[in-house]
Amino acid sequence: MAAAAAANTFYSIVAGVGAGTGRSVALRFARTYPVALLARNPENYESIVREINAAGGKAIGVSTDVSSESSVKNAFTEIEKEFKGKKLAAAVYNVGGKFIRKPFLELTKDEYEAGYTANGTGFFLFAQATLPSLLSSVPSSPHPPSLIVTGATASLRGGASMSSFASGKFALRATAQSLAREFGPQGIHVAHAIIDGVIDIPRTKEWAVNGGVEDGKISPDAIADSYWYLHTQPRSHFTQELDMRPFVEKF
Amino acid sequence: MAAAAAANTFYSIVAGVGAGTGRSVALRFARTYPVALLARNPENYESIVREINAAGGKAIGVSTDVSSESSVKNAFTEIEKEFKGKKLAAAVYNVGGKFIRKPFLELTKDEYEAGYTANGTGFFLFAQATLPSLLSSVPSSPHPPSLIVTGATASLRGGASMSSFASGKFALRATAQSLAREFGPQGIHVAHAIIDGVIDIPRTKEWAVNGGVEDGKISPDAIADSYWYLHTQPRSHFTQELDMRPFVEKF
Amino acid sequence: MAAAAAANTFYSIVAGVGAGTGRSVALRFARTYPVALLARNPENYESIVREINAAGGKAIGVSTDVSSESSVKNAFTEIEKEFKGKKLAAAVYNVGGKFIRKPFLELTKDEYEAGYTANGTGFFLFAQATLPSLLSSVPSSPHPPSLIVTGATASLRGGASMSSFASGKFALRATAQSLAREFGPQGIHVAHAIIDGVIDIPRTKEWAVNGGVEDGKISPDAIADSYWYLHTQPRSHFTQELDMRPFVEKF
Amino acid sequence: MAAAAAANTFYSIVAGVGAGTGRSVALRFARTYPVALLARNPENYESIVREINAAGGKAIGVSTDVSSESSVKNAFTEIEKEFKGKKLAAAVYNVGGKFIRKPFLELTKDEYEAGYTANGTGFFLFAQATLPSLLSSVPSSPHPPSLIVTGATASLRGGASMSSFASGKFALRATAQSLAREFGPQGIHVAHAIIDGVIDIPRTKEWAVNGGVEDGKISPDAIADSYWYLHTQPRSHFTQELDMRPFVEKF
Repeated sequence: MAAAAAANTFYSIVAGVGAGTGRSVALRFARTYPVALLARNPENYESIVREINAAGGKAIGVSTDVSSESSVKNAFTEIEKEFKGKKLAAAVYNVGGKFIRKPFLELTKDEYEAGYTANGTGFFLFAQATLPSLLSSVPSSPHPPSLIVTGATASLRGGASMSSFASGKFALRATAQSLAREFGPQGIHVAHAIIDGVIDIPRTKEWAVNGGVEDGKISPDAIADSYWYLHTQPRSHFTQELDMRPFVEKF
Repeated sequence: MAAAAAANTFYSIVAGVGAGTGRSVALRFARTYPVALLARNPENYESIVREINAAGGKAIGVSTDVSSESSVKNAFTEIEKEFKGKKLAAAVYNVGGKFIRKPFLELTKDEYEAGYTANGTGFFLFAQATLPSLLSSVPSSPHPPSLIVTGATASLRGGASMSSFASGKFALRATAQSLAREFGPQGIHVAHAIIDGVIDIPRTKEWAVNGGVEDGKISPDAIADSYWYLHTQPRSHFTQELDMRPFVEKF
Repeated sequence: MAAAAAANTFYSIVAGVGAGTGRSVALRFARTYPVALLARNPENYESIVREINAAGGKAIGVSTDVSSESSVKNAFTEIEKEFKGKKLAAAVYNVGGKFIRKPFLELTKDEYEAGYTANGTGFFLFAQATLPSLLSSVPSSPHPPSLIVTGATASLRGGASMSSFASGKFALRATAQSLAREFGPQGIHVAHAIIDGVIDIPRTKEWAVNGGVEDGKISPDAIADSYWYLHTQPRSHFTQELDMRPFVEKF
Repeated sequence: MAAAAAANTFYSIVAGVGAGTGRSVALRFARTYPVALLARNPENYESIVREINAAGGKAIGVSTDVSSESSVKNAFTEIEKEFKGKKLAAAVYNVGGKFIRKPFLELTKDEYEAGYTANGTGFFLFAQATLPSLLSSVPSSPHPPSLIVTGATASLRGGASMSSFASGKFALRATAQSLAREFGPQGIHVAHAIIDGVIDIPRTKEWAVNGGVEDGKISPDAIADSYWYLHTQPRSHFTQELDMRPFVEKF
């Protein structure tokens, strides 16, 4: 299917956009599909929406609290209205949540739960909202409809002072695996990416990561290329999990 | 230290008791320490409390909702009153939570979150309530003060229709690992047990597991022996994780 | 760098070619680089060499026993003579070795060791022969010089009657990880691909895998696309490990 | 069964004895069973044999090169002659092999293969020699006949300069897993212990491990207690894998 045809028929969603990975992923998917950007704070998506639309793509932004059932419901009502007649080809869940690093005994219950609220509850609501649409796209989508999820080093390893973030990311991985096993055989590609390193975004510009060596932080555009690569894999070859780290990263 | 001396000076806590593992663990630890049994429903601990006290041990039961901050607070106030002057030597978190196995799109938000409520929030509150006491026991405890946690096959693997339970158990494992890395160097033994199989308890009596072969289900007394073995390991040799399964279990 | 320029300056090597993955990988890399194909039996590479050269690419075949130090030495002498003045951009180790599935007590020592001979010793010799060349390409290669390795389900899991194959694939993964940690910071991309499923090749044509469903076997061309994708990742984003399986594969 | 009866009817084998873990394990198992000690160099077992026999136990030493088929065959002929009429209850494989830590490009083929020779080939020959005896003990052994294997940090993780040791330990783990899956259902307990830290033995006495803190090295007697604990687990509860590390060890 030509890109033009795909743009007329399908759309994509990226939840968790900001200045880093989410922006790069949105730009990458917008080359082929119209894209809906979700973030709680409109500031996080407004300039990206403008950037995509100015470049001849099609993007909308929807202010959404992914951990709120009603907010997610409203967001998808709006998305479906905006993209009426189009089918969902790809949904990316890139919500980081608040990163809390604190000695365990200093954590409040809310702080501990924040990791799960973003990566457990939030992904649950997002997956329930997108999977029916993805399923309905299976027969016609140019690539297997995809649900792609952003994990982290802490998806595999709990660290001292990291229980909030790690428990959320572990829960996200558990859910993604469960969905891969349930929806893979129905034609949906559920993939979990382990981002093991600092991402090279405005906020980390001054961080002297890995001794400040060039390319010592992960390029968000490279992550976006990987997500697109995952999306375009044929169903005879689904990658469920892959890691990504700078060449100098200790692991 | 003689067992009699230990009984006068230390106590233990088991959260999540019922007819299976919790009962066996309580009985095993009660041979050495007075034990506080936590369960939401008093029916789940009353007969065990009687059984231990009748055998010359010392046990109390406290009705507790481990996912409620105030309920946990009340429970520990009561425990500390009952065991005034004693120090905590071992705390076991054996809360299973509701086991929900359902196609993902049929899950309600509450059902999805139930796994985390029991294994994430509940363990967080339990660990925050017990770690300060465990830390204060480090200098005098006959064995390294221990926080032992019950995991499952789903702690390592998300399965179709298992996202609620698996995300809770993954979160529990993440938290236990984080605590092991933070409190291990302070002398606390945090251990995570992966129970991979059906436990041989009244509720599973009729289940023809593993072809109904003898010993095809895990003996809860053997689990209790393992927890006690973990508790008595010296600090030069802490086991952080071990699995347990019947000899015939596929894995 | 344009493809034409790359072809004049760099070359690639694929060890372990035959009718399946090796052929697809060779064809994929031959679109950009001249390629040397290694197999013990010339029958395994001759038609692929012809196919590539006929299509305007450049390929040579070298009969090599990868587990023999002298045979590997001779092969690389020949390759360096053939590709004199060119630098090595990518080396793929796709040697399967004999797949032996037998009850453990029926294995001979040679049969047990066969898994390691192919995946341990063979990869050791191949890596020692290619890494110095890959290192010398770091400053000029269009993509980070890559050493890509073919793993399997048995790289992660030993199965009954699988000790020969699994011990070889585990050893291969250990070595690949060690090399990633040693040579990654020097600019080499060492990647390990876990192929979890039956590959769709002439030999498996009649196998009714996954109920005989369409796309129930892994496309070798899709594997080749993944290897090329790995090769072209920038050094700020190296994937060390990824899995690949058909959408219907149980895992 | 009383210990005295066990001593008359069963015996045990420990391969890889020296001043550390092997000695402690031999002493621990010798409390219940006569024990055959295997090491290449008689100096490694002679004093332990004397120590056990002097304490009223029964031990023999057999000089064995575990990687040589004929040497292993001779060793087991001698063991069976010495312990004629007795059955094998437990076999421990604790062969470390030469620990080689070297930049990859400086390794010779023999050095690379040394890790596998000890942990692959050696364990293969040992397992083939002991499993038939262990199987014949299933109906009568006081505890499930056990095959217990010593792993290391490098069983799970390949490190820079560690390819020889890691590939051997990975291969050992693969084989142990394969045997657990094949022989577990036949009643044999195959267990893999991950020793993650420096062991407190004469050779490491002066090493300032973990800042030189007390108990910062693993007690070999504690490892022996764990191996005995594994051996005495009932078949309804087999631990296949557990880790062991000092409380202050980073992991």
